[in-house]
Amino acid sequence: MRSEFEFIERIRDRARGVQAADLMRGIGDDAAILRQRAGRETLITVDLLVEEVDFKLAYAPPRWLGAKTLAVSLSDIAAMGGAPTFSLLTLAIPPALRSDAFWEAFFDGYFTLAAAHGVALIGGDLSSSPDRLALDSIVMGVCAAGRAVRRDGARPGDGVYVTGSLGASAAGLRLLLAGARVEDGVDTPEQRALRAHLCPTPRVAFGRGVGEAGLAQSMIDVSDGLAQDLAHLCEESRVGAVIEFERIPIADEVSLVAQSEEEAFRLAVGGGEDFELLLTAPPENEAALVALAAERGLRLTRIGEIVPPCEAFTVGVRRGEEIKSLSIRGYNHFAGAPEPASI
Amino acid sequence: MRSEFEFIERIRDRARGVQAADLMRGIGDDAAILRQRAGRETLITVDLLVEEVDFKLAYAPPRWLGAKTLAVSLSDIAAMGGAPTFSLLTLAIPPALRSDAFWEAFFDGYFTLAAAHGVALIGGDLSSSPDRLALDSIVMGVCAAGRAVRRDGARPGDGVYVTGSLGASAAGLRLLLAGARVEDGVDTPEQRALRAHLCPTPRVAFGRGVGEAGLAQSMIDVSDGLAQDLAHLCEESRVGAVIEFERIPIADEVSLVAQSEEEAFRLAVGGGEDFELLLTAPPENEAALVALAAERGLRLTRIGEIVPPCEAFTVGVRRGEEIKSLSIRGYNHFAGAPEPASI
Repeated sequence: MRSEFEFIERIRDRARGVQAADLMRGIGDDAAILRQRAGRETLITVDLLVEEVDFKLAYAPPRWLGAKTLAVSLSDIAAMGGAPTFSLLTLAIPPALRSDAFWEAFFDGYFTLAAAHGVALIGGDLSSSPDRLALDSIVMGVCAAGRAVRRDGARPGDGVYVTGSLGASAAGLRLLLAGARVEDGVDTPEQRALRAHLCPTPRVAFGRGVGEAGLAQSMIDVSDGLAQDLAHLCEESRVGAVIEFERIPIADEVSLVAQSEEEAFRLAVGGGEDFELLLTAPPENEAALVALAAERGLRLTRIGEIVPPCEAFTVGVRRGEEIKSLSIRGYNHFAGAPEPASI
Repeated sequence: MRSEFEFIERIRDRARGVQAADLMRGIGDDAAILRQRAGRETLITVDLLVEEVDFKLAYAPPRWLGAKTLAVSLSDIAAMGGAPTFSLLTLAIPPALRSDAFWEAFFDGYFTLAAAHGVALIGGDLSSSPDRLALDSIVMGVCAAGRAVRRDGARPGDGVYVTGSLGASAAGLRLLLAGARVEDGVDTPEQRALRAHLCPTPRVAFGRGVGEAGLAQSMIDVSDGLAQDLAHLCEESRVGAVIEFERIPIADEVSLVAQSEEEAFRLAVGGGEDFELLLTAPPENEAALVALAAERGLRLTRIGEIVPPCEAFTVGVRRGEEIKSLSIRGYNHFAGAPEPASI
């Protein structure tokens, strides 16, 4: 492959494609320069993806890996109710991964998604890695002052809502682990599940719309799994939540791998990486939220309610007359695997 | 070690120590929220440090590694003439590196330097790594609109100036490779060289002062080595530069490892990682620049001049009556080692 400097010049050429307001200086200096404006707030998030831990090259077409690297961070900006604006990208590249074809495909995926959302790549860094690829994705966004939707604003009486459906990504991961592989141009439930896992769609337009219209009290994206992400939201807001077993919008693809209703539920709420948006809002905003989702071509499902904090559970699941504590846990990077699921 | 979530909570506790203007929301949400203000610009930079490539744990006391992780990015903000404000930190942690003592020391170094410069840690991410530690350091800064000092502003007739002295870091690296190790509380030239390499001091106050007073036409920090960084600056500015062989401020510690005047020069201009500031300014600003450096306890040396672009060299070295092209190259992550030095 070309040298480090030629590689960077190639990225810089591709980054020039996006016209960005308020960008005074992008790649090419010690730091990027961005104009600030009165009455606005900057949002910033970072997501680290490590080979063999967060992805496997054997599973992921490089174009999808490039898109997912950006998508996971776009999802965080969407979850704040903001509009994404700028990105930075850090690459630790092992000697075995120096083919031009790999990186052209990776950046096709990255820059196509960036252009779709008006995001300009303004910086980054590069190092070699002894053996594994690592990607660090930084995305900035913007919102009107005071309009960011935080995790800590949920109040008892809020409805709990989620976009789209849950579990397709977890189903896709199971299928990959069982040997399924991506096939170009094939549209089957199995291939849709793989795509949900390997190339998720962040809910950028809906999230931004929620923030701009001030419709939600709190919001988070479903990256660790609904159970864990709703628990994070409740902990930050110092409230509890009760969700309805029957109302979880389980993705059709889950039926490819789940043997029972319980297993489907566990995959949907415990699986993670769906990158749907989970939000809470007072009942009077429900109609506007559903309409906004419909405009964006999304389903929005009311799955439960925020309740005052209680000792028995942070997140409870109601099935019939019974409420049980939801103890499904998501991925713990230090434990190496999800903790045992139980409900 | 504790779980991933306890680890993050511990970092979050430590991050609360810094009071930061314009920080609306730090660690704990999908993204951090920062107030923008009219008449200001945001600066943002990122630096990736990979174990065995950019540092070795056998050499670096964890406290110094924590400080250096932040320092390299502070240096970039200084090189823009800005004031650092916020940081984010990404960690890919291998199973072998889970001791509380290591991370307490690492964060002592990181947060002590952050506090010294009023920098608040506002976010980050964490993953496990199969075998090597990788650190991604993101630092944001601020300056008045139009005051950022870029690489592309150098003009023929500008003087070329550098802070401090050059080569101590390269000398320190050679000593480490030859078996020297850090000894607590020992102040010898050898130990000072090791410290220059393992725990460099970014020129934050001077860089910010240069930007605020509008004294420089262009500026860059010396991370790849003066030869390469001055070439970057010249390429961005579409000019050339001539530096004087006799005027390079070679650090005293270079004499520990260099056998000749030529070798000392090569280490000083080719070694890299000094994190001094290299700037160009019109002659009428020289007195003010020297005074500003003196106020900050720094030496500032005029090492040459910006010239119109010429075909013979980007950066030339004058020694006596002769000007030769400076072809010393810095580190290339894809080549794995510096290219052969020649002058």
